[in-house]
Amino acid sequence: MLTIKRLDAGEARVLIEGAAAKAREIGVPMCIAITDEGGNLVAFERMDGGKVTSITIAIDKSYTASAAKKATHEYGEISQPGTPAWGISSAIGGRLMVVGGGLPVVVDGEVVGGIGVSSGTPAQDREVAQAGLDALAT
Amino acid sequence: MLTIKRLDAGEARVLIEGAAAKAREIGVPMCIAITDEGGNLVAFERMDGGKVTSITIAIDKSYTASAAKKATHEYGEISQPGTPAWGISSAIGGRLMVVGGGLPVVVDGEVVGGIGVSSGTPAQDREVAQAGLDALAT
Amino acid sequence: MLTIKRLDAGEARVLIEGAAAKAREIGVPMCIAITDEGGNLVAFERMDGGKVTSITIAIDKSYTASAAKKATHEYGEISQPGTPAWGISSAIGGRLMVVGGGLPVVVDGEVVGGIGVSSGTPAQDREVAQAGLDALAT
Amino acid sequence: MLTIKRLDAGEARVLIEGAAAKAREIGVPMCIAITDEGGNLVAFERMDGGKVTSITIAIDKSYTASAAKKATHEYGEISQPGTPAWGISSAIGGRLMVVGGGLPVVVDGEVVGGIGVSSGTPAQDREVAQAGLDALAT
Repeated sequence: MLTIKRLDAGEARVLIEGAAAKAREIGVPMCIAITDEGGNLVAFERMDGGKVTSITIAIDKSYTASAAKKATHEYGEISQPGTPAWGISSAIGGRLMVVGGGLPVVVDGEVVGGIGVSSGTPAQDREVAQAGLDALAT
Repeated sequence: MLTIKRLDAGEARVLIEGAAAKAREIGVPMCIAITDEGGNLVAFERMDGGKVTSITIAIDKSYTASAAKKATHEYGEISQPGTPAWGISSAIGGRLMVVGGGLPVVVDGEVVGGIGVSSGTPAQDREVAQAGLDALAT
Repeated sequence: MLTIKRLDAGEARVLIEGAAAKAREIGVPMCIAITDEGGNLVAFERMDGGKVTSITIAIDKSYTASAAKKATHEYGEISQPGTPAWGISSAIGGRLMVVGGGLPVVVDGEVVGGIGVSSGTPAQDREVAQAGLDALAT
Repeated sequence: MLTIKRLDAGEARVLIEGAAAKAREIGVPMCIAITDEGGNLVAFERMDGGKVTSITIAIDKSYTASAAKKATHEYGEISQPGTPAWGISSAIGGRLMVVGGGLPVVVDGEVVGGIGVSSGTPAQDREVAQAGLDALAT
């Protein structure tokens, strides 16, 4: 029998609020999604002005980060032409995201969920996702 | 050019909090989704214990209620065998929900969004969605 | 070798304009879709106020009517519980529409396309689709 | 509550007619799609000879341009191998188009919709989409 650690709804809100605070600080309204360790959605917020396309992209970044236990920008690095994971970006009907902005939520060395952010540049998305993690860690 | 009224992220949170309060009162953890008047997701929360299947169901109930401007239980009534909208329940890849728990958010006579709730019985889902609307109206 | 008769883009416009005139007459803004005899979209219009859910539903009604060479309300009649085509409504990922409002466009005894209408009651949708056919016939 | 500007059905027709005039001028029959600011389809025309594959591509180019508020050729530039948005082209089930021919419709600094064109080369598609915008602006 397995015992699983999984972030709860309250922790999901902390992640979203931490990310949203950073998004406001840099002036980019974001879509922010939180998934559990099984890749299933726990919470989502589209800030006023967040992009409609980013709804799915944020959810899928979080899905990828939590369910594959890997940051999406790391998938970007290993899926370039000529690299081993080339082509992975269209897996799972395109849900496997290789663009930065998806980060696993790690507690005591275990992946307990994920956060996915979209609407800015990939660097901005990643910075805002990290701010969510920082808010939970403090 | 058209001018459209659309609920904002703060109002979406009021809807979710009102619905979640009722869900706690009746002891049924729920998935709660809020969409804008174009059917696009604005906010979502899966309370601890909410069903994984209900993630999509709640989102699609809200999508239906907002984008079709009709409560999902009303679609249930007009899509029974022998009635005119028979078969509508599998439309849009199954996204057109005819099970109760999806309600349009109406402000000043205009549909500005929707709320969709799932994890309980359809009657419970509908009661919790209505509590969201009541919280926004007060 | 086959020689196929297929409605052209100009005829598609006549169909849409005929349908839209009836929609305005009965005061129900509609989504109106025209497909060719292969079920592929030729033209579409969402009148101001037409429902977002009806975009896909109108296209799929037209697809069904043209590609299956049968009015969608006829599918509704033969897919009721206990009838031979029971269950057909979820075929093709739900694209096979059995709700009224999809009609084949028949010229000289051949199906050359289809028209699909959605946003009103099934009876209104069917009336508006018929008005499109009438406009082309005159 | 948010107040949103959205193109109406008449403006969609102006966009299509402007684009179609340019398509005829360069001798390439096109698929032309117009979406609103939420990415939902407003109008579509496949000119006689337009490609069947381009039905979906034109709709998805318009969806991307309006819902992501960015021209599709700009996505092409920032998603090349080694660039930050590498891999974005398969997002949203492949609906996120990075091939030229999708342009946002901007009025008074706000994105009110999008136009997507397909059947020619990406450069031709983009030229025809621009002609649609020019027709609306005059």
